[in-house]
Amino acid sequence: MDRVYIADIAEHEGKEITLKGWLYNKRSSGKLWFLILRDGTGTIQCVISKADVDEATFDVCGELTQESSLEVTGNVSPDKRAPSGYELQVTRVKAVQIARDYPITPKEHGTAFLMDHRHLWLRSSRQTAILKVRHEIIKACRDYFDSNGFTLVDTPIFTPAACEGTTTLFETDYFGEKAYLAQSGQLYSEASIGALGKVYCFGPTFRAEKSKTRRHLTEFWMVEPEVAFADLDDNMDLAEQFLSFIVQRVLENRSEELKALERDTAPLERVVPPFPRITYDEAVDILRKNNVAFEPGGDFGGGDETVISEQFDRPVMVHRYPAAIKAFYMKRAPEDSSKALGVDVLAPEGYGEVIGGGQREEDYDTLVARIEEHDLPREAFDWYLDLRRYGTVPHSGFGLGIERTVAWICKLPHVRETIPFPRLMHRLKP
Amino acid sequence: MDRVYIADIAEHEGKEITLKGWLYNKRSSGKLWFLILRDGTGTIQCVISKADVDEATFDVCGELTQESSLEVTGNVSPDKRAPSGYELQVTRVKAVQIARDYPITPKEHGTAFLMDHRHLWLRSSRQTAILKVRHEIIKACRDYFDSNGFTLVDTPIFTPAACEGTTTLFETDYFGEKAYLAQSGQLYSEASIGALGKVYCFGPTFRAEKSKTRRHLTEFWMVEPEVAFADLDDNMDLAEQFLSFIVQRVLENRSEELKALERDTAPLERVVPPFPRITYDEAVDILRKNNVAFEPGGDFGGGDETVISEQFDRPVMVHRYPAAIKAFYMKRAPEDSSKALGVDVLAPEGYGEVIGGGQREEDYDTLVARIEEHDLPREAFDWYLDLRRYGTVPHSGFGLGIERTVAWICKLPHVRETIPFPRLMHRLKP
Repeated sequence: MDRVYIADIAEHEGKEITLKGWLYNKRSSGKLWFLILRDGTGTIQCVISKADVDEATFDVCGELTQESSLEVTGNVSPDKRAPSGYELQVTRVKAVQIARDYPITPKEHGTAFLMDHRHLWLRSSRQTAILKVRHEIIKACRDYFDSNGFTLVDTPIFTPAACEGTTTLFETDYFGEKAYLAQSGQLYSEASIGALGKVYCFGPTFRAEKSKTRRHLTEFWMVEPEVAFADLDDNMDLAEQFLSFIVQRVLENRSEELKALERDTAPLERVVPPFPRITYDEAVDILRKNNVAFEPGGDFGGGDETVISEQFDRPVMVHRYPAAIKAFYMKRAPEDSSKALGVDVLAPEGYGEVIGGGQREEDYDTLVARIEEHDLPREAFDWYLDLRRYGTVPHSGFGLGIERTVAWICKLPHVRETIPFPRLMHRLKP
Repeated sequence: MDRVYIADIAEHEGKEITLKGWLYNKRSSGKLWFLILRDGTGTIQCVISKADVDEATFDVCGELTQESSLEVTGNVSPDKRAPSGYELQVTRVKAVQIARDYPITPKEHGTAFLMDHRHLWLRSSRQTAILKVRHEIIKACRDYFDSNGFTLVDTPIFTPAACEGTTTLFETDYFGEKAYLAQSGQLYSEASIGALGKVYCFGPTFRAEKSKTRRHLTEFWMVEPEVAFADLDDNMDLAEQFLSFIVQRVLENRSEELKALERDTAPLERVVPPFPRITYDEAVDILRKNNVAFEPGGDFGGGDETVISEQFDRPVMVHRYPAAIKAFYMKRAPEDSSKALGVDVLAPEGYGEVIGGGQREEDYDTLVARIEEHDLPREAFDWYLDLRRYGTVPHSGFGLGIERTVAWICKLPHVRETIPFPRLMHRLKP
């Protein structure tokens, strides 16, 4: 008899099938056992009646413990009260392995304990739901770009000479040379648009930040599109289309998981274009009107971002930041050279920046001057400058942080639950 | 006037449009200029007739050099001789930037020169075609798993305590601890199946091998499915379905690129299930019959794999390798404990192993014994052993190397062309 997954149970109504999975919960009422089985695709109630099965089968139900692995054979019968619409009328139960003293019990556990047992904690319904939403978000990112003419370019993790200081870079010995783990694929994506027009990279990025906030991991995933012949406005158009697509896709395909997470979906339903677009100066005005102490010219902190985003019912795009606080490659605004053509997208509900990007400086001489102003080693950028020597074009792009997006869409208090095995300053295991 | 991509040209027949891209080639015949424009989605011939445009427009065509960036406006007219079926009757040409002395010319360049200019070399038609096939292969991998009930789990790159010796591991300082860059996500995928049933990880992996063969990169991408309640046969079923899906998808969607690469597609068309399945011992017999010097018990070299795969018209699966040459976690064959339930899939045409995997040992006591036999630090595997303590199940998985797959499908002599910015022992730039 072929094994069936719980997600496909409806196709087998009235038939005898075998399910394989783990015991989520059980209860007994004398001559009946009710086992809740989960198999990674769903959960289902399996009913064992003493009258219908042999004694060994009934007895094994008594021995089964939480997280024991088992195979259950029975008939699929409709049950209107069940979340899946079905339950299994069991004819046979086979224990694969009895789990003794599973460490995660229904009682409250501390975060450190759960993180130490992350390899098991993942099995909890809440963590499983988050991972499925994460999967959906990543698939939505890729589907969006793949169906809009972008080509994936896997940019390198190992990069040579540290371009912007080594303080937040992880370093490794590379056959006698020093190599650094990439914090972004942008410079390489910029090279790739010359070949492919529209590209995106999508991989892990690394930041050796000694920061212990709820928004920082040392290893996190980022998706970064880059488009030739695109200016800041095009970039904002792309960002709002892209982000809306992701949110709407999750709402469409993962309503069950969002429900399990008790996520109020109303704020997510509002995430549709157009997003409000305000300048940095306008954002500073918002802070002033709200009596937030803020030194104009500086970057926004998490609290500032929250106040700004609270003025709007969907993500807000803040553009034209002071050039002084932005990277050397960012193009200056033609109307005010003290401003950079950068844009951050701030998520609602206090989640802050999920997208950062902008238009890149495409002029060779200007870029050389910026590299000098920033006191960067010119020779490290020789290949990057080549892109301005040979057929340079206006171009833009941005990066979306996956873990922050998962945290926002699932409304989680901390990014550590957004990735299967989070890496934080003091967390390298399991 | 909106910008149009060359790939969408057919939608604009008879209309005036603007294309933006780079000059691939040009020629003149007195009162006509023929510009070949490429924009990352395709190439098209643009015809400029002196009689139809102003003098400045005609003159700028003379100034345009290879890889100059430009915008061309004109009318889309059908042209049966053109690969795209269309050409552009130009009304206006605007040079964005004139490229001076583009270093890659139609003459032959050495590999080192091209690799040093990888950021520009990507623009060549051959490299662009390879990157598009790579994109298609990766998309096919994800589409296969996403549509067959697998959940993506992004396994960590930073891993603690080196489990199997540090000689081929890249090491980094992790806030005072040592961390190593992952060579596989398998152990973490094994943990994730307890939550999700069927999972895959897909990310960069790292190997500090001092090897300079045509099949090795220090940084390469691997996709690794892992399935609960699956044995070696299930694993081989999955491998042949998966690999066939990828190859057929590329044939379907990337015939143009394969043609540009002059790839004979007949051998690829034969990549359909079932694949032949032979044991290691049978493979050794093949070597003996072909008078290949080979010491039974050892692993196959590239030359051995070629001889074995030449006996078949499609990929061949070799299973039941000597346990002594396989990893500690591999389950032993029940009929012969000197053999491990591992499988390698060898690609045809001399490309050798593209998939390696097998059934994992699920029994706690046996696994503990293996860890001791292999002289591995038990405490590093405590969390991994937990998976055998709490609801262990038979399970299997494998890893497919993306770069080797790209090399095979494109029939390339070396993996260095299969990834945008390859990292090799002596190659960390650009």
